[in-house]
Amino acid sequence: MSSTLGTLYRVTTFGESHCKGVGAIVDGCPPGLELTEADIQPQLSRRRPGQSDLTTPRQEADQVTIYSGTEFGRTLGTPIMLLINNKDQRPQDYGEMSQVPRPSHADFTYQMKYGIRASSGGGRSSARETIGRVAAGAIAEKWLRQIYGIEIVAWVSAVGDIEAPEVALETISRPEVDANLIRCPNTAAAERMEALVKEVLAAKDSIGGILTCVCRNVPVGLGEPVFDKLEARLAQAMLSLPATKGFDIGSGFAGTRMRGSRHNDTFVKKTARLGTRTNHSGGIQGGISNGEPIVFRVGFKPVATIGMEQETADFNGDKVLLAAKGRHDPCVVPRAVPIVEAMAALVIMDMTLQQQARQGSSLV
Amino acid sequence: MSSTLGTLYRVTTFGESHCKGVGAIVDGCPPGLELTEADIQPQLSRRRPGQSDLTTPRQEADQVTIYSGTEFGRTLGTPIMLLINNKDQRPQDYGEMSQVPRPSHADFTYQMKYGIRASSGGGRSSARETIGRVAAGAIAEKWLRQIYGIEIVAWVSAVGDIEAPEVALETISRPEVDANLIRCPNTAAAERMEALVKEVLAAKDSIGGILTCVCRNVPVGLGEPVFDKLEARLAQAMLSLPATKGFDIGSGFAGTRMRGSRHNDTFVKKTARLGTRTNHSGGIQGGISNGEPIVFRVGFKPVATIGMEQETADFNGDKVLLAAKGRHDPCVVPRAVPIVEAMAALVIMDMTLQQQARQGSSLV
Amino acid sequence: MSSTLGTLYRVTTFGESHCKGVGAIVDGCPPGLELTEADIQPQLSRRRPGQSDLTTPRQEADQVTIYSGTEFGRTLGTPIMLLINNKDQRPQDYGEMSQVPRPSHADFTYQMKYGIRASSGGGRSSARETIGRVAAGAIAEKWLRQIYGIEIVAWVSAVGDIEAPEVALETISRPEVDANLIRCPNTAAAERMEALVKEVLAAKDSIGGILTCVCRNVPVGLGEPVFDKLEARLAQAMLSLPATKGFDIGSGFAGTRMRGSRHNDTFVKKTARLGTRTNHSGGIQGGISNGEPIVFRVGFKPVATIGMEQETADFNGDKVLLAAKGRHDPCVVPRAVPIVEAMAALVIMDMTLQQQARQGSSLV
Amino acid sequence: MSSTLGTLYRVTTFGESHCKGVGAIVDGCPPGLELTEADIQPQLSRRRPGQSDLTTPRQEADQVTIYSGTEFGRTLGTPIMLLINNKDQRPQDYGEMSQVPRPSHADFTYQMKYGIRASSGGGRSSARETIGRVAAGAIAEKWLRQIYGIEIVAWVSAVGDIEAPEVALETISRPEVDANLIRCPNTAAAERMEALVKEVLAAKDSIGGILTCVCRNVPVGLGEPVFDKLEARLAQAMLSLPATKGFDIGSGFAGTRMRGSRHNDTFVKKTARLGTRTNHSGGIQGGISNGEPIVFRVGFKPVATIGMEQETADFNGDKVLLAAKGRHDPCVVPRAVPIVEAMAALVIMDMTLQQQARQGSSLV
Repeated sequence: MSSTLGTLYRVTTFGESHCKGVGAIVDGCPPGLELTEADIQPQLSRRRPGQSDLTTPRQEADQVTIYSGTEFGRTLGTPIMLLINNKDQRPQDYGEMSQVPRPSHADFTYQMKYGIRASSGGGRSSARETIGRVAAGAIAEKWLRQIYGIEIVAWVSAVGDIEAPEVALETISRPEVDANLIRCPNTAAAERMEALVKEVLAAKDSIGGILTCVCRNVPVGLGEPVFDKLEARLAQAMLSLPATKGFDIGSGFAGTRMRGSRHNDTFVKKTARLGTRTNHSGGIQGGISNGEPIVFRVGFKPVATIGMEQETADFNGDKVLLAAKGRHDPCVVPRAVPIVEAMAALVIMDMTLQQQARQGSSLV
Repeated sequence: MSSTLGTLYRVTTFGESHCKGVGAIVDGCPPGLELTEADIQPQLSRRRPGQSDLTTPRQEADQVTIYSGTEFGRTLGTPIMLLINNKDQRPQDYGEMSQVPRPSHADFTYQMKYGIRASSGGGRSSARETIGRVAAGAIAEKWLRQIYGIEIVAWVSAVGDIEAPEVALETISRPEVDANLIRCPNTAAAERMEALVKEVLAAKDSIGGILTCVCRNVPVGLGEPVFDKLEARLAQAMLSLPATKGFDIGSGFAGTRMRGSRHNDTFVKKTARLGTRTNHSGGIQGGISNGEPIVFRVGFKPVATIGMEQETADFNGDKVLLAAKGRHDPCVVPRAVPIVEAMAALVIMDMTLQQQARQGSSLV
Repeated sequence: MSSTLGTLYRVTTFGESHCKGVGAIVDGCPPGLELTEADIQPQLSRRRPGQSDLTTPRQEADQVTIYSGTEFGRTLGTPIMLLINNKDQRPQDYGEMSQVPRPSHADFTYQMKYGIRASSGGGRSSARETIGRVAAGAIAEKWLRQIYGIEIVAWVSAVGDIEAPEVALETISRPEVDANLIRCPNTAAAERMEALVKEVLAAKDSIGGILTCVCRNVPVGLGEPVFDKLEARLAQAMLSLPATKGFDIGSGFAGTRMRGSRHNDTFVKKTARLGTRTNHSGGIQGGISNGEPIVFRVGFKPVATIGMEQETADFNGDKVLLAAKGRHDPCVVPRAVPIVEAMAALVIMDMTLQQQARQGSSLV
Repeated sequence: MSSTLGTLYRVTTFGESHCKGVGAIVDGCPPGLELTEADIQPQLSRRRPGQSDLTTPRQEADQVTIYSGTEFGRTLGTPIMLLINNKDQRPQDYGEMSQVPRPSHADFTYQMKYGIRASSGGGRSSARETIGRVAAGAIAEKWLRQIYGIEIVAWVSAVGDIEAPEVALETISRPEVDANLIRCPNTAAAERMEALVKEVLAAKDSIGGILTCVCRNVPVGLGEPVFDKLEARLAQAMLSLPATKGFDIGSGFAGTRMRGSRHNDTFVKKTARLGTRTNHSGGIQGGISNGEPIVFRVGFKPVATIGMEQETADFNGDKVLLAAKGRHDPCVVPRAVPIVEAMAALVIMDMTLQQQARQGSSLV
């Protein structure tokens, strides 16, 4: 369904960039989880705008309020409504701007699809829509950590053509990722990335990049063949994010060049159970988690809003020159880190509950 | 839901590699469509095994029977049950084989998830499961072609490290694709690919590859923000296929290296409506089709079943040497062509019906 | 899904009786509908508590705020978040009360299901949960009225053993229904009902009743066989309301006593199309609307909260005497009128959009 | 979704009355359940036509074949396809019959909704569609009995105006129900019912009736507030059956006449947990099972197909006289017994899996 994700842990987001507020309803969160706003705020703060001169200057505290679903700091098992008010709205009037669909934005397609669109900002296609996801993901993450010790960490692995070397998947942590503004745990690469972002910013341009994400301690058996294979749901989740252009898992596109004899992850006895020597599968085989770390990449295009003048056409088809005046990020990947983590948490949470349904038989 | 795909055009597949039959129920097909088995068989024949010495020698005619949902050659708007009997089954007994989970197969994860698994072949993780999808996709394709003139064509754009040059997206056709066994429309590349596949086959090995797919004449406005963005649903659909490791759309991962000023698809007046000069967006902006060709890539890993001996472990963790005896393809991509087309058709069909729901107001 | 209703017009409600607020997200509302809070408030005011001495004295203005999904008074086609703050909360501390599950309330089952429950009021099982439904239903109703001229009117047809005579289904209107406090359009019956309610109130007791609802001008063809037959979805919607014990449609349970020769609704030419002489079918045949008025009944049990002392057991199984101190209605049916109307609107709306999906073929 | 029921235990039925076959796919059945056709056949045989001179003379053995989802007599956790061939088809040609929509049948509404309809029999609205439900329900029942000891028994409690006295809910069994052809466990009432059915049959007429169903040993905690309350899902399931006009639970419509002081089910310590003295709630409070027997009634209208001549109109609106020639039951309730049991099993199964998802935390 369009604004709802998940079968048992269901998140429904709402809100445009310039309406009264944004947020989400989380339905299906297990009861009894300790939960206050303090569990949610850190990830929201990691994604909020105005963090540094590498991000959009729009100022939003993005303070979340839990409206329902908890009492005395515990979840009741009922829908949790999460509300974040929009503060720094600048709704523009119906001026020239609204007659020109911004290139590679959603102005044109929303107008054609709905016959109407939010007159200012990106409306529902704005990155502000992801706030509800991040809040909902933070709740999922807390439960997954408490019950199964699951850890989810994403980082910037490429900006433009600058690629970071591989990181230690077993240990990489959020503090390491947050050690620099670009959120690349390799300091040398991070410095070059930062310089590149500043360069494109100065040129009134933008640049794309890639995030890598690892999910550790995921139980064996998650993922519902055939259409809800774990990687299929992760792919949907990631490609549902604004500005994403690609997803691959494990060996990914590079793996298409390999031979089976090298690509196959042969089995070996590990402490508690069978594991694999290599992890080209990225922690998933046949659509089901195998206990190895889940590793995937998400590609983000360069931000579409640029200060540089572009020749384009208005809705009537007449040629116009457009130079964006709005506030925007020159590169979206640093702020995308908590968003990708949230989406991974939402998918894994839903799949965990579905697998629990299969294993239980302990009702009174 | 695990074996069901879609909201309004819903496909539920069934069947293991060695049970009595495989197939699907299509629920939600519009009434009044002319439909017989002859509309479905061609795509099934394009995917069936035993087509050439580049594919598995398993012999299956894969003849489809329509069990319900049509009368006098027209759809009734009711569920269409499509049944394809398994013929060339070779169910093995509980021998040594079943004690050794095949590397990079689903034996281990199915066993762990379900506590049981099909003792022979790949069970539900087998490529035979895709037969139901191809049959259901053929129906969707017919309707999309008749009502909207939509054309969907996929081809092999890479095998191992051999990449085909770009093809003409506006004209590429299935006959061109089928002109050679490898299904790459560039003859020179196709020859090199074929040679490579034969080489890995001789070496009892396997190799991966990439498919590219274009969807033409897709109406503007398809895709349901935010979680059912068109590219999100395509990504899920493709990553739900066996052996897939990656999906990207338009500029894809390569686009992450570009600057916004070059990547942005500026608007220009085309015959009937606004179009874009370039198509880095791959026909989708903000999750909604924009009328340009939809272009995406799907990466397939090398086939896991290889004749070469591999050192691995059995379910007890004891070291074993395994050399596959089963029948298999050395490279999956030629037969994946109709499968990828089917998945694209299923997604576009469902999104088309959802958009029709929004536009109508003509009930009696 | 538990807190979400509908396939294309999807309503997700949230909120407990004593949390910060209650409301709903409406996802899938068609774009371009004129909509402000003034379109929603009237039905909320019809259901709000404190309307008269026949209803609970809890005072709630139940003012709705539209948080998202509209701009300049028109729907954008995006999720509409509707928030109604709880004002007159009286959260009780963990006292004796919480150790005694109230008879025929949800205290016991919520505690057993979730291992936790809202400590005060009815939590999620409270009638306050229906506020989000009424708000969402008011939006659906406006669209259905504008596009198809659909009219939905419910009224009290029985209180205890006092039954109102049949009303004129073609003309019965909300003003007629609201002409008295009990919302029974037959004045004589209404007076007797009112007297009965006052009598049970004085006796610190409660009483049940029945609502009848008619939906006029419903297009032919709504309802999705087989599991989403129109009457099946109406039945689910009505039985999902607190305190409901039964649903029947057309001739209903009384029809089970009839012979086919009398029960059959034979066809006759009406102005625009075929109609039926009688309407024992209640406007639905084979799960699909036939253009005749849809008529159904919903039975409500006597309110479980009564001031009279009851002998019951606490959670430990020890005998206790319980006399409710909370505020409550002696008879729920007058306030249930707009709630039943809302549920009917939600179902018809969803079915209308689904049928529109089938009929359209007009995308660009 | 129209032909799919359930969230975790999902049943998708297919088949018209005169196509090649009918059946269902069951997706989500727990793995490891012993299952062969012999587990399913008994309930199919209880519902099959031609059992006695009280039922339609159409002869169908209704032999089920399991096509997928099991191996060596155990479920694999994968989709189970159940196929029952239609044998005694009598597809009529496009004759006069098809120009006259049968009164109180679905001919008119199907034609209006889909613009086409099955030319013979009831197509998808035929009672043959329920075969897939009964087969799927038999599997659910087996699992529910094995894991939780759940017992589901339905019986005929009224035919026309002949009502059977109350039965012993704790002990009533299927053999008792099947002791006579009418399936009413009270012999005296059964004899009168049988005589009535024969009378209406002789008069070329038909008659309605009521089924009562009890579900014993249902775990506490099933049902998903708010829209998937257990009684709401039961109501939907029952009203999705052909010819049903009403559903009520516990005290039902009769309970609307009672006062709260008498209606309330006060608590009392029972062996293992709290129980209730009375069971006006019908085993469900707040939408959640409370451990008491679940008891509900389903009302069936008189069969619409009657041999008696009726004055009606053809599709053009011209007056015609119609006397049905087809085979039909004079009273549907005896054969509806296993169907109602199946629907109850499907709902309880799905709710059980959903509650198991909430309680588990034991994945590896």
